[in-house]
Amino acid sequence: MSSKKFIYLFEEGKSDMKNVLGGKGANLAEMTRIGLPVPPGFTITTEACNEYQNLKGSFPSGLMEDAFAALTVLEQKTGKHFGSKENPLLVSVRSGAAVSMPGMMDTILNLGLNDESVQGLADLTGDERFAYDCYRRFIQMFSDVVLEINHVLFEEVVEKYKRKLSLIFDYEIPAPEMKEIIKEYKAIVLKEKGYEFPQDVRDQLYRAIKAVFDSWNNQRAIVYRRINKIPDDIGTAVNIQCMAFGNMGDDCGTGVAFTRSPSTGEKLLYGEFLINAQGEDVVAGIRTPMPISKLQEELPGVYDQFVDTCVKLEQHYRDMQDIEFTVEKGKLYMLQTRSGKRNTRAAVKIAVDMVNEGLITIDEALMRIDPEQINQLLHRQIDTSVKLEAIAQGLPASPGAACGKVVFDADLAEKMGEAGEKVVLVRNETTPDDIHGIVYAQGVLTSRGGMTSHAAVVARGMGKPCVCGCETIKIDAIANQFAVGNQVVREGDIITVDGATGNVMLGEVSMIEPTLSDEFATLLNWANENKRLAIRANADTPEDARRAREFGAEGIGLCRTEHMFMAQERLPAVQEMILSENLRDREAALGKLLPFQREDFYGILKAMSPFPVCIRLLDPPLHEFLPSHESLALGLVEMKHNHAPASEIFAQEELLKQVHKLAEVNPMLGHRGCRLGLTYPEIYIMQSRAIFEAMVLLKQEGIETLVEIEIPLVMDQAEFLFLKKEIMAEYESIKQEKETELNFTLGTMLELPRACLVADEIAQEAEFFSFGTNDLTQTALGFSRDDAEGKYIPVYLEKKIIKDNPFAVLDRKGVGALMKIAVEKARSTRDDLIMGICGEHGGEPSSIEFCHLLGLDYVSCSPYRIPIARLAAAQAALKNK
Amino acid sequence: MSSKKFIYLFEEGKSDMKNVLGGKGANLAEMTRIGLPVPPGFTITTEACNEYQNLKGSFPSGLMEDAFAALTVLEQKTGKHFGSKENPLLVSVRSGAAVSMPGMMDTILNLGLNDESVQGLADLTGDERFAYDCYRRFIQMFSDVVLEINHVLFEEVVEKYKRKLSLIFDYEIPAPEMKEIIKEYKAIVLKEKGYEFPQDVRDQLYRAIKAVFDSWNNQRAIVYRRINKIPDDIGTAVNIQCMAFGNMGDDCGTGVAFTRSPSTGEKLLYGEFLINAQGEDVVAGIRTPMPISKLQEELPGVYDQFVDTCVKLEQHYRDMQDIEFTVEKGKLYMLQTRSGKRNTRAAVKIAVDMVNEGLITIDEALMRIDPEQINQLLHRQIDTSVKLEAIAQGLPASPGAACGKVVFDADLAEKMGEAGEKVVLVRNETTPDDIHGIVYAQGVLTSRGGMTSHAAVVARGMGKPCVCGCETIKIDAIANQFAVGNQVVREGDIITVDGATGNVMLGEVSMIEPTLSDEFATLLNWANENKRLAIRANADTPEDARRAREFGAEGIGLCRTEHMFMAQERLPAVQEMILSENLRDREAALGKLLPFQREDFYGILKAMSPFPVCIRLLDPPLHEFLPSHESLALGLVEMKHNHAPASEIFAQEELLKQVHKLAEVNPMLGHRGCRLGLTYPEIYIMQSRAIFEAMVLLKQEGIETLVEIEIPLVMDQAEFLFLKKEIMAEYESIKQEKETELNFTLGTMLELPRACLVADEIAQEAEFFSFGTNDLTQTALGFSRDDAEGKYIPVYLEKKIIKDNPFAVLDRKGVGALMKIAVEKARSTRDDLIMGICGEHGGEPSSIEFCHLLGLDYVSCSPYRIPIARLAAAQAALKNK
Repeated sequence: MSSKKFIYLFEEGKSDMKNVLGGKGANLAEMTRIGLPVPPGFTITTEACNEYQNLKGSFPSGLMEDAFAALTVLEQKTGKHFGSKENPLLVSVRSGAAVSMPGMMDTILNLGLNDESVQGLADLTGDERFAYDCYRRFIQMFSDVVLEINHVLFEEVVEKYKRKLSLIFDYEIPAPEMKEIIKEYKAIVLKEKGYEFPQDVRDQLYRAIKAVFDSWNNQRAIVYRRINKIPDDIGTAVNIQCMAFGNMGDDCGTGVAFTRSPSTGEKLLYGEFLINAQGEDVVAGIRTPMPISKLQEELPGVYDQFVDTCVKLEQHYRDMQDIEFTVEKGKLYMLQTRSGKRNTRAAVKIAVDMVNEGLITIDEALMRIDPEQINQLLHRQIDTSVKLEAIAQGLPASPGAACGKVVFDADLAEKMGEAGEKVVLVRNETTPDDIHGIVYAQGVLTSRGGMTSHAAVVARGMGKPCVCGCETIKIDAIANQFAVGNQVVREGDIITVDGATGNVMLGEVSMIEPTLSDEFATLLNWANENKRLAIRANADTPEDARRAREFGAEGIGLCRTEHMFMAQERLPAVQEMILSENLRDREAALGKLLPFQREDFYGILKAMSPFPVCIRLLDPPLHEFLPSHESLALGLVEMKHNHAPASEIFAQEELLKQVHKLAEVNPMLGHRGCRLGLTYPEIYIMQSRAIFEAMVLLKQEGIETLVEIEIPLVMDQAEFLFLKKEIMAEYESIKQEKETELNFTLGTMLELPRACLVADEIAQEAEFFSFGTNDLTQTALGFSRDDAEGKYIPVYLEKKIIKDNPFAVLDRKGVGALMKIAVEKARSTRDDLIMGICGEHGGEPSSIEFCHLLGLDYVSCSPYRIPIARLAAAQAALKNK
Repeated sequence: MSSKKFIYLFEEGKSDMKNVLGGKGANLAEMTRIGLPVPPGFTITTEACNEYQNLKGSFPSGLMEDAFAALTVLEQKTGKHFGSKENPLLVSVRSGAAVSMPGMMDTILNLGLNDESVQGLADLTGDERFAYDCYRRFIQMFSDVVLEINHVLFEEVVEKYKRKLSLIFDYEIPAPEMKEIIKEYKAIVLKEKGYEFPQDVRDQLYRAIKAVFDSWNNQRAIVYRRINKIPDDIGTAVNIQCMAFGNMGDDCGTGVAFTRSPSTGEKLLYGEFLINAQGEDVVAGIRTPMPISKLQEELPGVYDQFVDTCVKLEQHYRDMQDIEFTVEKGKLYMLQTRSGKRNTRAAVKIAVDMVNEGLITIDEALMRIDPEQINQLLHRQIDTSVKLEAIAQGLPASPGAACGKVVFDADLAEKMGEAGEKVVLVRNETTPDDIHGIVYAQGVLTSRGGMTSHAAVVARGMGKPCVCGCETIKIDAIANQFAVGNQVVREGDIITVDGATGNVMLGEVSMIEPTLSDEFATLLNWANENKRLAIRANADTPEDARRAREFGAEGIGLCRTEHMFMAQERLPAVQEMILSENLRDREAALGKLLPFQREDFYGILKAMSPFPVCIRLLDPPLHEFLPSHESLALGLVEMKHNHAPASEIFAQEELLKQVHKLAEVNPMLGHRGCRLGLTYPEIYIMQSRAIFEAMVLLKQEGIETLVEIEIPLVMDQAEFLFLKKEIMAEYESIKQEKETELNFTLGTMLELPRACLVADEIAQEAEFFSFGTNDLTQTALGFSRDDAEGKYIPVYLEKKIIKDNPFAVLDRKGVGALMKIAVEKARSTRDDLIMGICGEHGGEPSSIEFCHLLGLDYVSCSPYRIPIARLAAAQAALKNK
């Protein structure tokens, strides 16, 4: 006997022992425990598997002794004997990890048959055809999964006999031919392996268990685990169970069913079954199974028992179940039950229905929906029931699917879009100059750039589908076409892009419109009742703000002002401001921008009233508003070669000089954020004035506003204080001009490690903090997002240096540690300081949970992720009650 | 009376009350206290000055009452009376802050004279000429500094009379003319100010004190404080002291003296005096003073007393003194004593001599030298006694002065340098291609780039003078000349560059060679005996290593390997490696680099044996070894215009594509450091092999080595572990190949905030840490050094947002806080972990003190800063005993 308990009889286990018994084993035990008809059996633990792996493929000592001892118990229960010629005990062997995991060896049925016991089975059942069919199936399955002989070899033999006898179905093959087939099968084994098919039933069992363990590390299983982030060291259990035979006649059968519809969530049995068949026949697709409802006609008694059992299982597990069953001579046997997979729509409906049925609590309903999945409900989706052939694949940069005519130029996109045509803008990369084109396009496809490229960021903000960095498409901007391999796609050709998968398809693909069901609304209302975090939106326009409110935003956590500077009609004034050589010229140029900015703020504040709006003063380095040095230098060379007028050359040279002066080696760490404000206070003063003036206008209209003015990229109290004084001075003059007082606070974004380390000092002056975790991740890890995502993060993920992309999932150990320091320091200074997060992590569930744990006041994310954030915030609150 | 004590009689003060009494006041009090002949007086405190500033120019209440009360004490002591016609008390009024501060109002003598008391002085002394001379001087000084009347007006009057009487010296003017002069003086005052010269002696005193206080905020004083980082709120004291007259005849005089030579440190009285003169005559330079030794002949008794006093003062203050004295009728009066200013050479000699004389302790000697000053002793210097005219000024990028023929090309510099000619390499900026030219040049001058540009870094490493970013010179590379304004400097013309000041001068300027005196060596030995920190060098070549040892390095703290990759003969192989499309090609290219690297390491390890050498594996992003994207794109345009062969164009296009692929938005946060190693482990494996093979060779020669292999830019244990495994596998194969074991450790540079936060985890695998505070500063503050130093750090310093450039002086609050966290976490894992610092802060005294306080094991700096670091480390140990 082994020193550890490696074997559990079904009656010894429970559903909460998944880690030990695997999902399948735990559920078989549970069903046994609650009195459902389950053929007796036992489970070899996952720990045995792990020891086997550690021993490099040797069984832990005593394991097989214990297994045979358990088998003896099964013999006692059934009165049958393993390997017996008279009354043989047959078993199934199935793998079953704690997490459902395709790719591993699945099932061997009828184990225990050999040349002698098959005769016993025939004698016992009086059905020779049945017995030899079982043996044939066993040899084929065992040879395939244990001996690793190509199953096609066996299938050919069966086909040969069916042709000879002019039969359609396997089960029509008579016993004599079945025996011939078995002879041929055994010859194949001898030829392929050089030894006879194992006749020792104990050896059969030994090899089958070993095969299950070995399959834990086959290539498909490894890949599946990597993709699904399943640890490599949890191992699989092995379930050994007495056979129930669905193939002993027309009062037999086998089937699978869901207790509710996995695609709509409706409360009705959903599944199919086959009369006179063994498990794998349903899946094999040779015979067409009947819908489960037909079982009522075929075997009414069994059907009633099955319905009862399903109700009992749902009541017991308090979830929709995915069930496998077999009927042997009119007797129902349950072979498996587990929580049923379902799509998001069904998941939401089932959860809400079950609350209404009194089956689960609201808390449980909220916990059952994966927030990330909600994305599906908010965007148009490719209809996955249709087979798709993608011509190219890029990065899934902004979810949703879009279809339209290919257009390579933003102006044309705008023109066609305005005329009501659907277009997809295709570019190598987009720039602020393309914004108007993106507005009118259904979606965007770029050949370069990552998840944070301009196109991706803008499209996500607008909720438009976008596929980025699709490097296999080669755009020929002169011929107005792109090529993928040999295929050429011309302007006006129709393509479909799927921002959820990154796929690019030719032509129009059928789509599913997003559906916001009543149940979904109910669920989100429950989320609001249970969450502690407020959910705000990152929104730069009144339209964004309105959309955000529709999704339930409770304010704006980040209103960036640089996109406003990028707008086409303003860029000249912005460039004039940048190129000014003295304060007076700069102030004159800023004067031109003031009315635009006032209008921007007026619209956003109105749309979000009376919720708070956090407006970040100008952040990016000024050179972002100018053409690149290289493009100017190349232009200059061309101008010289083309003998352009001297005055034009001179102007270009001057511009080049200015751009050279402003150029930066590392713009992310450059002359930006409050450093701009400190160098050119007049910029922030103009922006503050625009905010104040917009507030005054709204106040006159009786519209309430609550503004948070945010100074970006602060690393020291002195920076903040300097700018606070400038802004308060401007407020004082507005107050006198307009004879009114305004409701606003001044705060900063914490996005530098140093800011977190001196948060107590900054909090002496600031009234709110917002964690800018995008930049905080860049600086804490020293990862330039623009460079890392394309270059080394994929390497890091592949080599398992990191578990997640730190720009997607907040890095708790590094960035999180800094946030924790900051929160503690800030609270030590000012107990009521408002704190939130506005990086992209603000819309990611595990990061939201971290923010909840930190005690932040709100998270802010893009409008389309607000429902996700609401649910994630509720889950965080429930998990950490 | 005031509620606070604003007034101290000299006998009430002490030398340690400088903050209250100012330096001068405290020393006058101290001299009084130890019984030296000091005319009686009192001091108005610095606090009174501060209150005056806070009251916006009003005296604190009771201040003048207290001053007059103190004056009464002086009257009692002297038997004279302030403003008396019979026996008038005259006083001097002098400013004196805690720190010596030129720019403020200095001195008013003879205050208390008016039309009546001058007659009393004449009667009393029987010397009418003397009395009226005093009055004349007083009116002139008072009018100048208190009434702010241009002193030239008064000087013209005196000149007029001297011309009229054909006199040379002021003191030859007879009494009657003196009276006339006074009349004219008073007329000037009336004309300029509209009121009579104040006759009320109390009003005179009131105005004089106010003038001292006001001078605290005059422009020169403000500028001086800013440059010298003196706080604005320490205020100045005012010293009011009874006059001693050096101008009462030939048994009178006045002088200044140092107790030792301030330029050589030799132990001899050094100074000068004038017979029959008042204080300002010595400074005015109208009469040529006599050397102090002549006093022995002139007034032997006084001289002896003076020598005694000097000895007494040195004994008392235990430092070389700078003394002002006056002799009135054969009686010596001490007017001031303070620690004498001295140059570095003198400072070192005096400190060491005083230890040998038993006057001070070794600890004190060590604390007396400013480590930064030592720089002067290590580099050639411009002889400051010669008047200089700079034609341009750039940044003082690498200390020392160099003189040579202007050369614009590195190849020519090498050729001429090899031929024994002295050249200065002048370029817009340097690149790795210019290294051989820099090696042969005396110094470098560039028109672009900051303190961290390539030229600056390379020159500092080599100890060569360098002036960078000298934007006023316009280089014409075709004509081989540069222009500064209208001046043209041609190839072959001789210039001198001063890397200590940034000055560029035409022609050869006389220089002072560095002198490493015996006293200097003694001092540094004492430093070694007292410091706890080991001092290592940042050194990349055997030559660097040898130089570092000469300066006392105890190992190499940072041996960068990228400079080795940049060398001309290796760059092609490096580029081949980078452009390889598969592992095999990359390994082949690396194979070519292996012998070079082995040779590098062999040389360095040999030169530093048996001290530890920390070798950092390749750090910079690979694109740094390729031409820039812009230069290639421009080249391509040119090639096309010039109809270059299609094959060449194709090659250029291919290279451009590769460079585009490697291009990064923020290279500082890009694909570099261990991220390279993780992507291309073969690079680090080659480097490790080179190190191991070099160690084997040295072992065979019987030369001991101790290598620390450093993995750069680690932010997580997993990165380190991955590379550790690769390197250890390489070591295992070397061990088998060579059948030998080697003495090395594996560690990492802590240069990212996250690394500091998880230092405990990294320490589980790493055997040493080295803080890379350059990058840690960049990431913690979000300051790109390349951008910040040129763009916003100057703004920050000017607006007092920061006190120091954080790249020069370690930012304790941010970077320091991260280091502290890292040290605590690391020590919690591994008590004996070796920790050091290798950023440029490793050579900066206040940063070195911080490292000492943190408990680091060593600091590492450039070879030329090692003496500075030794002294700074000793001071840190002594200060924090």
